[in-house]
Amino acid sequence: MLILDRVGSAQEWCMAQKKAGNTIGLVPTMGYLHEGHLSLVEQARSKCDIVVVSIFVNPIQFGVGEDFETYPRDLSRDQDLLEEKHVDALFAPSISEMYPPGYRTFVEVGGEITAKLCGASRPGHFKGVTTVVSKLFNICVPDKAFFGQKDAQQVMVIEKMVRELNFPLEIVRVPIVREEDGLAKSSRNVYLDAEQRQQALVLSRALKEAHSRIERGERDVARLKEIMREVIAASPQAIIDYVEIYDAADLGDVDQVDRKILMALAVKFGSTRLIDNRLVEV
Amino acid sequence: MLILDRVGSAQEWCMAQKKAGNTIGLVPTMGYLHEGHLSLVEQARSKCDIVVVSIFVNPIQFGVGEDFETYPRDLSRDQDLLEEKHVDALFAPSISEMYPPGYRTFVEVGGEITAKLCGASRPGHFKGVTTVVSKLFNICVPDKAFFGQKDAQQVMVIEKMVRELNFPLEIVRVPIVREEDGLAKSSRNVYLDAEQRQQALVLSRALKEAHSRIERGERDVARLKEIMREVIAASPQAIIDYVEIYDAADLGDVDQVDRKILMALAVKFGSTRLIDNRLVEV
Repeated sequence: MLILDRVGSAQEWCMAQKKAGNTIGLVPTMGYLHEGHLSLVEQARSKCDIVVVSIFVNPIQFGVGEDFETYPRDLSRDQDLLEEKHVDALFAPSISEMYPPGYRTFVEVGGEITAKLCGASRPGHFKGVTTVVSKLFNICVPDKAFFGQKDAQQVMVIEKMVRELNFPLEIVRVPIVREEDGLAKSSRNVYLDAEQRQQALVLSRALKEAHSRIERGERDVARLKEIMREVIAASPQAIIDYVEIYDAADLGDVDQVDRKILMALAVKFGSTRLIDNRLVEV
Repeated sequence: MLILDRVGSAQEWCMAQKKAGNTIGLVPTMGYLHEGHLSLVEQARSKCDIVVVSIFVNPIQFGVGEDFETYPRDLSRDQDLLEEKHVDALFAPSISEMYPPGYRTFVEVGGEITAKLCGASRPGHFKGVTTVVSKLFNICVPDKAFFGQKDAQQVMVIEKMVRELNFPLEIVRVPIVREEDGLAKSSRNVYLDAEQRQQALVLSRALKEAHSRIERGERDVARLKEIMREVIAASPQAIIDYVEIYDAADLGDVDQVDRKILMALAVKFGSTRLIDNRLVEV
């Protein structure tokens, strides 16, 4: 596996691959890889000639007081995992390589899609995401880029950006990978102590319960949110950031489950903020 | 010459050209072509296998009360001129093709480079420019894109955007083309009546006078701006928008002509706003 830490050499290498007629699959990550990331890599491996994974903990998508400094990092372990998955190239640039002094260019998606959910809790977060992803697209010139459904709003925002800025590539959504007990895989799970790890099951349970109520005929969105809040309340340490249900296409408001919806949660355990979601169609 | 009015078909065609091993030169314009544009086309023709010209009067780079509605348009004349220059493809999309309903994604370069000169006179202008140019880059996937030095600040902003978002292409600056009497070619010159057309010579004269003073040893920026203002004052109809001298690299402030500088003017005659500039190195 080729390891590239310069924008120039990564771009040159990727463009040479394209010129040689190879399709490129890009998997953008912040590292500390888990099976969720690896399922993105497997998807890329199965769909593209060349697989490029990027590892970059992007400072501009973290807010003040968020966990940029403490975000878990283990590049050598990540390298081993990617080698095993037959990744062709790892792009792991430094911060100054991505944002040289005087950096001032940003890509921003406006509207409801970035104002709600994590956009409300984390102002500026999605502007940081769309900017770094635009840069990665221009550097790695992928035919397809792979994102996890775990960050449901992120992939919606990126799809809108790709569509509106006309990036010549396809976004592939990959389903959430969960632990056996239902907790969605996340690099941030490592922050949880044993008790919090146990209590964190309320996220997936709340979503599952709401889903089963929908299957049994419940259509009232307010009632479904209440049900999810009740399940989460079973955990004494859980502090709800948001419990929401929106139109899965554009995060528009919905009163009734009468179309494809996104049920989305963000819950804090101590200083650790976890998210989870489910798409439901009736 | 192929005429493309859809984003999808233009992108498909350009990507097929790239795949076939051809280099693409893009000349983004707002149409109503003059010899300035045609010199960009000639440059592209001499440097690239395939030349694509875009014509799109981009609504989002015009402010409220500016001349978007009245901006001169003549697509069939433009087509003839481009055929004569052996352009391969003309991309001329509609507004709704470029900005479908619900469009919300923008690219913005911040800092001094967009805050000064036309950025100060025309708030939001460069955000409109960088957004549409990003879209055109993604649609036409050029190896080189050609911009006129006439819009000196625009080309600086686009160069910064390309550098910072890592667009995989090169910006080529092409010198200003002038009328025989010195007036910089501009699609907006058509707005001028005979008297204004004559008086508009004060722009190029002011720049020339300041340049010749520099050659004779003047280094004081305040004095040079005063000299330009005096030349412009010779025209009774001229209303100065700005007369400025900045660092040519980043539009930083300068007191003395001790590096490469940009002398830049914007002057209104009635409702017609003209710009001109000169780069000077001592």
